[in-house]
Amino acid sequence: MKIAVCPGSFDPVTNGHLDILRRAAELFDRVIAVVATNFDKHCVFTEAERVELLRRCTGDIPNLVIDAYGGLLAEYARTKGADVIVKGLRAMSDFENEFQMALTNRKLNPGVETIFLATSAENMYLSSSLVKQVAALGGDFSAFVPASIHDIIMKKFERTDNL
Amino acid sequence: MKIAVCPGSFDPVTNGHLDILRRAAELFDRVIAVVATNFDKHCVFTEAERVELLRRCTGDIPNLVIDAYGGLLAEYARTKGADVIVKGLRAMSDFENEFQMALTNRKLNPGVETIFLATSAENMYLSSSLVKQVAALGGDFSAFVPASIHDIIMKKFERTDNL
Amino acid sequence: MKIAVCPGSFDPVTNGHLDILRRAAELFDRVIAVVATNFDKHCVFTEAERVELLRRCTGDIPNLVIDAYGGLLAEYARTKGADVIVKGLRAMSDFENEFQMALTNRKLNPGVETIFLATSAENMYLSSSLVKQVAALGGDFSAFVPASIHDIIMKKFERTDNL
Amino acid sequence: MKIAVCPGSFDPVTNGHLDILRRAAELFDRVIAVVATNFDKHCVFTEAERVELLRRCTGDIPNLVIDAYGGLLAEYARTKGADVIVKGLRAMSDFENEFQMALTNRKLNPGVETIFLATSAENMYLSSSLVKQVAALGGDFSAFVPASIHDIIMKKFERTDNL
Amino acid sequence: MKIAVCPGSFDPVTNGHLDILRRAAELFDRVIAVVATNFDKHCVFTEAERVELLRRCTGDIPNLVIDAYGGLLAEYARTKGADVIVKGLRAMSDFENEFQMALTNRKLNPGVETIFLATSAENMYLSSSLVKQVAALGGDFSAFVPASIHDIIMKKFERTDNL
Amino acid sequence: MKIAVCPGSFDPVTNGHLDILRRAAELFDRVIAVVATNFDKHCVFTEAERVELLRRCTGDIPNLVIDAYGGLLAEYARTKGADVIVKGLRAMSDFENEFQMALTNRKLNPGVETIFLATSAENMYLSSSLVKQVAALGGDFSAFVPASIHDIIMKKFERTDNL
Repeated sequence: MKIAVCPGSFDPVTNGHLDILRRAAELFDRVIAVVATNFDKHCVFTEAERVELLRRCTGDIPNLVIDAYGGLLAEYARTKGADVIVKGLRAMSDFENEFQMALTNRKLNPGVETIFLATSAENMYLSSSLVKQVAALGGDFSAFVPASIHDIIMKKFERTDNL
Repeated sequence: MKIAVCPGSFDPVTNGHLDILRRAAELFDRVIAVVATNFDKHCVFTEAERVELLRRCTGDIPNLVIDAYGGLLAEYARTKGADVIVKGLRAMSDFENEFQMALTNRKLNPGVETIFLATSAENMYLSSSLVKQVAALGGDFSAFVPASIHDIIMKKFERTDNL
Repeated sequence: MKIAVCPGSFDPVTNGHLDILRRAAELFDRVIAVVATNFDKHCVFTEAERVELLRRCTGDIPNLVIDAYGGLLAEYARTKGADVIVKGLRAMSDFENEFQMALTNRKLNPGVETIFLATSAENMYLSSSLVKQVAALGGDFSAFVPASIHDIIMKKFERTDNL
Repeated sequence: MKIAVCPGSFDPVTNGHLDILRRAAELFDRVIAVVATNFDKHCVFTEAERVELLRRCTGDIPNLVIDAYGGLLAEYARTKGADVIVKGLRAMSDFENEFQMALTNRKLNPGVETIFLATSAENMYLSSSLVKQVAALGGDFSAFVPASIHDIIMKKFERTDNL
Repeated sequence: MKIAVCPGSFDPVTNGHLDILRRAAELFDRVIAVVATNFDKHCVFTEAERVELLRRCTGDIPNLVIDAYGGLLAEYARTKGADVIVKGLRAMSDFENEFQMALTNRKLNPGVETIFLATSAENMYLSSSLVKQVAALGGDFSAFVPASIHDIIMKKFERTDNL
Repeated sequence: MKIAVCPGSFDPVTNGHLDILRRAAELFDRVIAVVATNFDKHCVFTEAERVELLRRCTGDIPNLVIDAYGGLLAEYARTKGADVIVKGLRAMSDFENEFQMALTNRKLNPGVETIFLATSAENMYLSSSLVKQVAALGGDFSAFVPASIHDIIMKKFERTDNL
């Protein structure tokens, strides 16, 4: 049985993330979507909210579980017996950072492999930051996130001047 | 009549910006240089100052007006009946961010087109950040900004430890 | 009146080219799609074929004309009184080459401006080379080219072992 | 059971290829290293030689088989019932081409997923072209290819003025 | 006699920095490793600590001295009579920033040349940020920094929740 | 005494090459501009012509000599007792290829270091290919090459349909 870890800030989860999670779930026996909580201070949504948003839009993926973790990803993967870390690649800058992290994680935990999936063309320009910018400025972000979590995100940005 | 919007932080306007504004004014009937005020907190110059700096060095471009706006650019373009958003492209990282924003703005407002102009070779390395860094450290930035606004920028950096 | 030149090998024209041509035609009064014939030796389709393929799929763009030219683009633009050269940008390598050509053309003809349009997300991976590769190997390329020219392209690749 | 296809020109196989093949074999139940023969004319080694070189250095990977194919990769994957195409990523230009091919292959065969593995740091600069250049100029390429095939490659370049 | 300046935040110095310093010391008669203190607020280590860490691991490079400076690098180079600024290049984003700075420094001080050295393959993924992230999360960073400073860095991250 | 090798096809030498050669001559005691003759078949100018063109425009650089070589650069550097290989960097694609070659040359000859100089902003878009394209199409390339060799290049392209 192959276990895959899909880490991310998921602040909030977007259609791009969801696409990667679904495709990972096709490839591996068990997928753990893990909310990275190391950089919480820069996040608009709390750890609990980010987990909840993920939960709402991944209910139909039977072999996916959701978790949150604040430590080293390589260590987390070891604990869970994961074989692979799955990341979506969008663009050049993504590529460089992700590459650096993949090489580092391999150094820290040679037992786990990082694989990259190419983001679908229609999600190429999508990011959590984009969703937050558009939402904060009152724009229509419904094309960027799963319908099931749209209103929760909108409410978050109505309440406060987040970004 | 074709109307173009040239958005930017203009914090402060540089020779690079001015070159793009002039070239946009050659291509379109009316150009609106719009100071984006969404990210004010990271700016050294106030909204009023940035508008004033722009005004001082664009007086000879008859079909250019200056404005400031804090909302969604796609929305602003709609309100003004703009046909096109004009951005200068310098380098790789520029390219990626601008590309993402162009695709997003098209999703948000299909009626407006984003076009890119290649920054002139001599301005390729120029940015507002560079001007601010050099000015803050007491260096000579006169080759980077229009002569008409040089002293105002210098005064700003004499007064406080900005950056 | 603003005149735009859209140069390309168009070997063959793809949905990506067509999208750029349509958008250019929205922005400018007159658009000239010009088949560059300098590098004919690397082309699968003859000059006449490439012009014909363009003609077949641009009939509904009233302000577009088609031409072919084998000389210097900057010179061609001068002859035609063009104000602007329009290019589609897809990806990083595109960006670099196009940037170099834009700066060169400006040196050779300061009266013409080059502008870039971001390729639509769905055409981001599309190129004439891709169409030719897929067609040569007998794959289904119907999603990549206008329906009106699909069969002509297919026939070309049936007849000979092109690529 | 998950089946992975690892396509390449393998002209000749390098330590970089071998590393990717081994890692793919860790992740998936069955790996098919497939020599792409579409671009044979640009290759120094014949199809048979490239298959033989692969065979010589992958004998210790029990779940790997070797094949050659001249058609569309998406079609090949379908025929073999493959779930995934595995590619190694080295650098920026790799990234762009591979991305384009991944999006294309998904369009042509939605049932197969492309995944990317980051080349190990020590193989980052390695390519078949590099091996051929160094070998053709009489340099020491022993650090770039498996020891078991070094002499065969050297002999190839002694015999003729290949490149 | 040729004098080289190697500027950096060195927060903390890594094996990658050390490799560049050693190679610069092979090429030039005198090398000044200068701790840039302009961006101190983002640093985990104080100026004094960063100088001390550098000192501990460069003791065996006879023609290297260590300094700290908070002003304009071009100005610093002028004061020291330096002929050259030496920077290590790792990746794409590095490249762009460094390029911009090289062109700027040449504008500000035409008497000093910037040269780039390619980071060794094994250090390609290494950065001070990486060291700090791994250390802050309790990971093993011993492969990333000189052995002589490992414990000092570890102590820093035990004491406080730095990053 | 430090000896630098500046390799290139120099087909033909451009203002960009000349700028790099001059700057290398400022940094090192002796500079060898070496015409690489490995890829002669793709060159428009013969080895003798390329050497002659270099000779004509570098006469005022006292510590520069000109040579031609068809073997491995790392080997050439060894033979000449060179300490350093100097390359100009223009753009992204340059960067990647050059990086690969620098790492390779270090593997092949650890005694020689590769350094990169950032091309001047005004030469950023310049290349031998560009000169040849413009010249072949009858354009004005006088801004791209030293005046002393302009007519020789022009004559070459008058005589034949080169490219």
